[in-house]
Amino acid sequence: MEQKLEQLKTILAEITDLGGAVALLGWDQQTYMPPGGAEARGNQLGTLQRLIHERQTSAAMGKLLEELKPHAAALDPDSDDARLVKVVSRDYDIATRVPAEWVVEFAQVTTMAQQAWIEARTKSEFSIFRPHLEKIVELGQRYVSFFPPADHPYDILLDIFEPGMKTADVKAIFDALRPRQVELIKAIAAKPQVDDSFLHQAFDEKKQWDFGVEVITKFGYDWKCGRQDKAPHPFTNGGSRSDVRITTRVNPNFLNSMIFGTMHECGHALYGQGTASKLDRTSLDGGASLAVHESQSRMWENLVGRSLPFWDHFYPRLQETFPSQLGSVPLEKFYKGINKVQPSLIRVEADEATYNLHIMLRLEIEIAMVEGKLAVKDLPEVWNSKMEEYLGVVPPDDARGVLQDIHWSGGMMGYFSTYALGNLISAQLWEVIGRDIPDLTDQIRAGKFEALLGWLREKVHRHGRKFEPQELVQKVTGSKIDPAPYLRYLKEKFGQIYGL
Amino acid sequence: MEQKLEQLKTILAEITDLGGAVALLGWDQQTYMPPGGAEARGNQLGTLQRLIHERQTSAAMGKLLEELKPHAAALDPDSDDARLVKVVSRDYDIATRVPAEWVVEFAQVTTMAQQAWIEARTKSEFSIFRPHLEKIVELGQRYVSFFPPADHPYDILLDIFEPGMKTADVKAIFDALRPRQVELIKAIAAKPQVDDSFLHQAFDEKKQWDFGVEVITKFGYDWKCGRQDKAPHPFTNGGSRSDVRITTRVNPNFLNSMIFGTMHECGHALYGQGTASKLDRTSLDGGASLAVHESQSRMWENLVGRSLPFWDHFYPRLQETFPSQLGSVPLEKFYKGINKVQPSLIRVEADEATYNLHIMLRLEIEIAMVEGKLAVKDLPEVWNSKMEEYLGVVPPDDARGVLQDIHWSGGMMGYFSTYALGNLISAQLWEVIGRDIPDLTDQIRAGKFEALLGWLREKVHRHGRKFEPQELVQKVTGSKIDPAPYLRYLKEKFGQIYGL
Repeated sequence: MEQKLEQLKTILAEITDLGGAVALLGWDQQTYMPPGGAEARGNQLGTLQRLIHERQTSAAMGKLLEELKPHAAALDPDSDDARLVKVVSRDYDIATRVPAEWVVEFAQVTTMAQQAWIEARTKSEFSIFRPHLEKIVELGQRYVSFFPPADHPYDILLDIFEPGMKTADVKAIFDALRPRQVELIKAIAAKPQVDDSFLHQAFDEKKQWDFGVEVITKFGYDWKCGRQDKAPHPFTNGGSRSDVRITTRVNPNFLNSMIFGTMHECGHALYGQGTASKLDRTSLDGGASLAVHESQSRMWENLVGRSLPFWDHFYPRLQETFPSQLGSVPLEKFYKGINKVQPSLIRVEADEATYNLHIMLRLEIEIAMVEGKLAVKDLPEVWNSKMEEYLGVVPPDDARGVLQDIHWSGGMMGYFSTYALGNLISAQLWEVIGRDIPDLTDQIRAGKFEALLGWLREKVHRHGRKFEPQELVQKVTGSKIDPAPYLRYLKEKFGQIYGL
Repeated sequence: MEQKLEQLKTILAEITDLGGAVALLGWDQQTYMPPGGAEARGNQLGTLQRLIHERQTSAAMGKLLEELKPHAAALDPDSDDARLVKVVSRDYDIATRVPAEWVVEFAQVTTMAQQAWIEARTKSEFSIFRPHLEKIVELGQRYVSFFPPADHPYDILLDIFEPGMKTADVKAIFDALRPRQVELIKAIAAKPQVDDSFLHQAFDEKKQWDFGVEVITKFGYDWKCGRQDKAPHPFTNGGSRSDVRITTRVNPNFLNSMIFGTMHECGHALYGQGTASKLDRTSLDGGASLAVHESQSRMWENLVGRSLPFWDHFYPRLQETFPSQLGSVPLEKFYKGINKVQPSLIRVEADEATYNLHIMLRLEIEIAMVEGKLAVKDLPEVWNSKMEEYLGVVPPDDARGVLQDIHWSGGMMGYFSTYALGNLISAQLWEVIGRDIPDLTDQIRAGKFEALLGWLREKVHRHGRKFEPQELVQKVTGSKIDPAPYLRYLKEKFGQIYGL
């Protein structure tokens, strides 16, 4: 059986290598690729994805897994080998349902769509992106059709990003969240607004960049195994545990984009860099799910990066960096400013109290598109009317509306709700961390993050994909994904800021 | 037969796609990859190269070629299809001799070697690079052993880069060149030296970069299908005709590195961007050989870029860019300065009269290493003593000696002589161009390069790999590779500059 396991690992190493190449081609496409390269890149990605798919679905793989299952059943169910067989079997079951032609077409369509999205967003012209998105929705519907009927067709898409999660579960969680969040937002709206005008000034781009680098270096981002570049929509890309790259964007007239975007992506990257090296070149390298990934990025961005202890340490450095803009803004005012709650247009720049509403809007739109109840051509109108309904603001153009996010151009349907789930998990973890590291606040106030990162490495990062998301959350926090800690966190934090 | 040809093209498209991915992984490795990524990159490249090799050597490929050969024999021998079958058959014959294990090992060894070379060069410590180079020489010798004995073992390596060329041919050409070049250098040394001190001043890096961009934009470099980045050793990388990237380096205290390096790489890129689109995703996409490639880069760098008419146009712009450094240097003095003949340490910065001596030194060293007559450990000493013998200068450290070139770290043994052959071909083409475009000099003086680029596109670029190098040179110039035009060119140019 050891020999069979070695054979499996040889195939997985090849798949991982091809996946690493795909990751780099994707990174390049969003950072440095000249526009003329799009078509050839689509061909390259199509071929690589097909080769991966062939290997994931080969008869040899199926036979090996059948032979290994009884062996794995006799092992400690939490051992690496038992988990490897389980995870690979799941991947195999999914991959064998999806025809190779679909995989190739998906790679080609999304490559062209990403180029079109960049142009559409730059020009704020939805019509440039529309035909591409129509193809992507159609590809999503075809993907669903490859699987046995689920409780809801959207379950199939959700499962890509969040193994085991159901549309009904997400809706139930969101239904519990929505009234409490709306209630909180209303209570805040009844109070005097905090001032954040000082964040909207001219800030030298290079100095912003350098400040972000200083922060994430202290977080523990390993520059030997990563780098940071600019991208129109920030993302993190891990070709391997030893090469996890982040991207950010710098707005010369608004400080938040760079600061919180950089910390957010660093959170993802710390997770990627923290997988145990023994999982290299296997299917267990990677994150448990997108929601767990997002729990890491949102933790560093918000629970750490928008906290008062964090700025106790970093604010003097930021003031030194921008003396004319911030020299006369006291810490307390700055802290309130970066936590200002105000319904706004851009999801990635939304405050913590309104953020989840951006997600709910996207989830409803995706479900309606997948159900065929919403045509792509009607998207800008529906987007804008939902924005008005939920947040009371209407995008003045599509660049700040329906075109703001990259996800659909990359074919990612079923992804968005993981952001909200990630918020919830981050708060669940945070409560446990607070108990395990009693002086965490003092450490953060001293600019020390080793204990926090060490805890995350030990409890979350090193396991890679070994555990399913609900299982991992249960293991670490004692309960499944639960909105209560996040609501407690919001209430306490914004209660203090707005004097509720 | 049409169907067989389509089958062949399907396989070639896949090989091309994998090759495009390899190209990007290689580009990234030399520009942006963090050092920690080296091992995973080695695995990725090893896997991709093995997959390419499997396809190049598959039984299906062999069978298709056997079936297509009689069909191809009935076609116009210069038709795309006939040539495609011929070129693919050659590739197949070579690839089937090389075991897959060698290909994987080569990819892994060279990936690690390139990282080691960067470190060794930075620290000027040959010992860091030595064990890697030993492996590479051994890999080269094993490669030779896979082929039937040739006139000389080095022929097998030369043939990788210069199809059909023999060690004896190169030696004969070099034997004809050496005394004439040495004679010229001696005649120059007897004359008063020209002044180039003004080139060794502080030149703002950003302004240098921008000037280089301005020049190659006028040359016709298509930025939609390429980009320029910095790299420790400039190179051009074409993942596809529509994505041909160049790199350059900028020395803040010496103007030549950037200016001539940028034009050189642009010459390669114009060739890569100029292949006919009908050859996309086939084995005919690419250059005829390295020497032909080098004829393009050296032409734009030297025959264009170090000419008086070129600087008639660009020198006022350069003076505007660097008024304090060059404002008082007249054109004639500048022209002589950039063409100063003086034996020096760095090949890529060598003048046209001494350049080929750098190549001869490398050729002799490579041949001795392949023959097993020169141990890698003795390389720095042999390098330095040959430098003294041929050029009368001794490198003060290995960074400016044996570690200066990237080639060996990438496993490229047999490559260097193509630089000298490229010089010869460039002058042969130039004589024909001068007849076909009688007002070429006036056009260059007016900063116009469309006719020149158009001629190169028509006569050289669009053919891709259709013709073998000697065949192409014969076709365009009426004779095989011939040192006479280059010697005539050197004599006329330096006769004028040095008043010989």
